Amino acid sequence: MPSSNVLPHALQTLAIKKLTGKRVVLASASPRRKAILSVFGLEPEIVPSTFEEDLPISSFGNIHEYPVATATHKAVEVYERLVEADPDNAPDLVIAADTVVLSHALPSTSQTSYSMLPEVKQELYEKPTSKEDNFRMLLDLNGGVCEVVTGLVVVYPILTSPGYMIKSIDERSLVYFADNSRELIEAYVESGEGLALAGGFAIQGRGGALVRKVDGDYNNVVGFPAASFFPTAGHVGRRRFRLLGHLEDPPPWGLLRALLIGKRFNSSMWHTDTDVRKHSFGVLVHGDVG
Amino acid sequence: MPSSNVLPHALQTLAIKKLTGKRVVLASASPRRKAILSVFGLEPEIVPSTFEEDLPISSFGNIHEYPVATATHKAVEVYERLVEADPDNAPDLVIAADTVVLSHALPSTSQTSYSMLPEVKQELYEKPTSKEDNFRMLLDLNGGVCEVVTGLVVVYPILTSPGYMIKSIDERSLVYFADNSRELIEAYVESGEGLALAGGFAIQGRGGALVRKVDGDYNNVVGFPAASFFPTAGHVGRRRFRLLGHLEDPPPWGLLRALLIGKRFNSSMWHTDTDVRKHSFGVLVHGDVG
Repeated sequence: MPSSNVLPHALQTLAIKKLTGKRVVLASASPRRKAILSVFGLEPEIVPSTFEEDLPISSFGNIHEYPVATATHKAVEVYERLVEADPDNAPDLVIAADTVVLSHALPSTSQTSYSMLPEVKQELYEKPTSKEDNFRMLLDLNGGVCEVVTGLVVVYPILTSPGYMIKSIDERSLVYFADNSRELIEAYVESGEGLALAGGFAIQGRGGALVRKVDGDYNNVVGFPAASFFPTAGHVGRRRFRLLGHLEDPPPWGLLRALLIGKRFNSSMWHTDTDVRKHSFGVLVHGDVG
Repeated sequence: MPSSNVLPHALQTLAIKKLTGKRVVLASASPRRKAILSVFGLEPEIVPSTFEEDLPISSFGNIHEYPVATATHKAVEVYERLVEADPDNAPDLVIAADTVVLSHALPSTSQTSYSMLPEVKQELYEKPTSKEDNFRMLLDLNGGVCEVVTGLVVVYPILTSPGYMIKSIDERSLVYFADNSRELIEAYVESGEGLALAGGFAIQGRGGALVRKVDGDYNNVVGFPAASFFPTAGHVGRRRFRLLGHLEDPPPWGLLRALLIGKRFNSSMWHTDTDVRKHSFGVLVHGDVG
């Protein structure tokens, strides 16, 4: 069991101390997420998920649930794979995240009169497929406000069935694009920096030149909402969470139990997805815990 | 004359191309400012200013002028020193910045009832003098909103007297602190990270754990408002700016001329300080240029 996952420069808080000596896994190959965790002194094992990230977007009534569902699939896939590979060395915490960009989150602040354009349609942007696609995205985002949503999910073992708990948040930040010249956007796309990133820009890189301001957690725009993650990370090992429904329960009993038990706790911005894998059947159980 | 100040990864914009082959100097020893410029592909010579940063804060009617005045003194000191040392190799652009933190910029968003505390006074925070001072600052900022103000100044040569032009902005960002526990603040102060920084915290480091959200340019909170700097940086070498008053003019003629000429230009958020060194006599001439 590795004990080097907490680096010496980490703040000596109770939460960090609880992670020391634990097996912490990041289910993401993103160098940005690794870098943000490293700033705060956490250096998890990296085990990228093999989940294909192909959930049908149109099946989500609330689009903010889409990155949460993708991140949940990633985290559960990695957790189950690692438990199966070595049941005696199950991870203590698996972290997964998925970031998407929603265009036109607020009325445009651009100097361009959008009434002269054919239509303004809200789009969900993941990674661009080409430089042309990247250019189209940045032209659509230009002068406007987009919302960056990261689904952040942690999975950790519990004693009752199914053997693990899933907790998640969707963290939202607004990004205000400047009224950038076509020349600047073209130069940015040509640099290739945005090609591997949701929305086609890296706010932490040269893409920062395109952005007027952020309203929210900056790290969330980069790809990992650290300020929300760390206060909760220490919950691992406390083992005091109640399971809000079981995977084995036939619907609607898991849902009902989750709602009943959930009532007994104070609400929190974290919610617990007990049955995300049934999402394809339209059942997604959330219950707030204190 | 060094031509390596523009790195290969810089966006190929007109502004960047104009800086290529120019002598660009950063009048600051801050590794953070150097790092931000480097992200955007600019690697200036580093020539820290010897200006003592001891302007009397109480002499500023508008407190936002204080970091601008400090940055102006830094930039002019370095520019004049380099011209004197080697008149045939004068800098093409000297960049200086000064960052301060103003507490209680907005009504508190804390869960703590401030009506129970003795007083809420707006403070201007520079670097803490000790860990105790750092702790006091962070306790004052906790749960509230502070304003981070960077005075950014560029100096570049012109043909008319006094031989250089000064342009400046004060960039403002709001930082919303979370309601952090005393334990977290103590652990942060103990880490020592905030000791060398205005306000006593590094948002780009472990101090990010203390912050709920930013409203504005994130790089400005780190110490350099890059998004405002780069669109204007390319003005160097254009030599099309008008001098708005002369250092040699006796008051009030410099002021009057600046106002008269300034009227002929479109306004801009950049203003031109032609006579900042007379600030101790209460004269500070600003004129907007297009």
